[in-house]
Amino acid sequence: MAKRSYAIIGTGAIGGYYGACLQQAGFPVHFLVRSDYETIQQQGLIIESIYGDFTLPQVNAYRHPPEIPPCDVVIIALKSTQNQCLTAILPQVIHPKTVVILLQNGLGFEEQIQPLIPENILLAGLAFICCNRIAPGHIRHLDYQAIKLAQYAPHYEPCGITPTLEQICADFTEAKVEILLGEDLLQSRWEKLVWNIPYNSLSVILDAKPDEIMNHTATRELAEKIMREVQQGARSCHREVTDSFVEMMLDHTVKMQPYLTSMKLDFDHQRPLELEAILGNPLRMSRQHGVDLPKIAMLYQQLQFLDYRNLNS
Amino acid sequence: MAKRSYAIIGTGAIGGYYGACLQQAGFPVHFLVRSDYETIQQQGLIIESIYGDFTLPQVNAYRHPPEIPPCDVVIIALKSTQNQCLTAILPQVIHPKTVVILLQNGLGFEEQIQPLIPENILLAGLAFICCNRIAPGHIRHLDYQAIKLAQYAPHYEPCGITPTLEQICADFTEAKVEILLGEDLLQSRWEKLVWNIPYNSLSVILDAKPDEIMNHTATRELAEKIMREVQQGARSCHREVTDSFVEMMLDHTVKMQPYLTSMKLDFDHQRPLELEAILGNPLRMSRQHGVDLPKIAMLYQQLQFLDYRNLNS
Repeated sequence: MAKRSYAIIGTGAIGGYYGACLQQAGFPVHFLVRSDYETIQQQGLIIESIYGDFTLPQVNAYRHPPEIPPCDVVIIALKSTQNQCLTAILPQVIHPKTVVILLQNGLGFEEQIQPLIPENILLAGLAFICCNRIAPGHIRHLDYQAIKLAQYAPHYEPCGITPTLEQICADFTEAKVEILLGEDLLQSRWEKLVWNIPYNSLSVILDAKPDEIMNHTATRELAEKIMREVQQGARSCHREVTDSFVEMMLDHTVKMQPYLTSMKLDFDHQRPLELEAILGNPLRMSRQHGVDLPKIAMLYQQLQFLDYRNLNS
Repeated sequence: MAKRSYAIIGTGAIGGYYGACLQQAGFPVHFLVRSDYETIQQQGLIIESIYGDFTLPQVNAYRHPPEIPPCDVVIIALKSTQNQCLTAILPQVIHPKTVVILLQNGLGFEEQIQPLIPENILLAGLAFICCNRIAPGHIRHLDYQAIKLAQYAPHYEPCGITPTLEQICADFTEAKVEILLGEDLLQSRWEKLVWNIPYNSLSVILDAKPDEIMNHTATRELAEKIMREVQQGARSCHREVTDSFVEMMLDHTVKMQPYLTSMKLDFDHQRPLELEAILGNPLRMSRQHGVDLPKIAMLYQQLQFLDYRNLNS
């Protein structure tokens, strides 16, 4: 049986890295590339990875979505701040049987994407990875690599482990990417937010790395209290994030090496922050269920101010 | 009748300005001076004021508390972060009939000061003034000037308008300083916190002036929500800060000129922030009455981190 073909929408650090892993394992991969097109077209992709460096001298790079041939799987690896582009892009790159994977953090975008692809299966992936684009077509993979993958259904109804999930898992496993399958996407998304909300937010507001935040009593307590609010948010959606999960995240972060969160990286490069995915949508979802998250609401307001000034200065 | 004599403990911008006004009006004033002693001893005090510049070529400056002669009134004009010094200073500068005025923002220091001067009347003043020390012995008075003055009794029992308040008021009026008398010190302190908590805190955390905070929807809403928490704090202490007072503060700040809050000035000069006076003590007082102020608690935690890093970098 022929290997499934993949399209990568957004060839930044994340899309470039996972796409390169798939191509390296023999899957046909097609990359939609914006800013780095010239370089990638000429030199391919260079991956420096803790699991071993490799180069793909030749990749299928496209500047415009209609140039991409029909693929079995489309991976959306844009920042969620660019999701408005998907209305134009998605119809041009899918066929009726294409599986779409939304590889983004945060909450609440599947509801916007599913209507664009009503016939297709939509999966979502949460990447636990630390990798940066250090130059055009040049990606440095520093740590972690796993993707938590789950299937989406309207209103985030749990889907369990579906055959599609298992197929995609098999492909990534062949590409030496660890996949964790989730039975309940919303549960996985809230769990990821337990870390993402406090550390992404505070790293920008306080200009601090997670290890610094954990090294001061006041901010360590604050991070924990914010995590407790994320638990409340999950609970408002009838999902239970356990106390031991929260404690694991805290322990894990105390031992972390100095690390720039993705939101801090965006901030430092004067890119728009993923505020709706990480804060705005979780706040709205909780509020719809009658639950207020006052500390997270305040982080959101502080970040809206900082983001605005950062992009307009 | 001889004019009352005044001792000024802490000759910074605030102590220097009001002390100079009193001396200019003929009151005998004695200044305790630390860092600017040499200059003030030689050249006196220079006041640049929107109400008219004046110079006092000769002032009674002292480096050590025991050198100060007994005075009728002692004005504490130190930053509250230096209040631990008062244990040593106060017994050396008061006699049984001395009136002590604590000229500091924030909450909760009278309870520490009263036991040091059990026989004396303790007043507290909230200065509505914008003035800076621009060089040793050189003070620039930019805007406002009034002092809200009220008398302290244990547990912040309201004292009404006492004869002592009226006497001090008469002296300051003679010195052309506007005095507003308060019947209830705790009420006045919570009212002042309505402005001080949001703008001092956010100006440091977001590196922003009050007018910028008011010019962005998210932070304008946040400032208002923080003010609402201050109202709750006041209510926990059986004091009512009215909605119209809150709205007046918001309107007032919208129209404000770009202005550095006192906490931001302290931060920028790497001085300790007045965190206990402005945030820690109000939080504790509310909590003792069973009321949690989650947004203010978060500001306090963020500022503890920033203050620590600022003083240790």
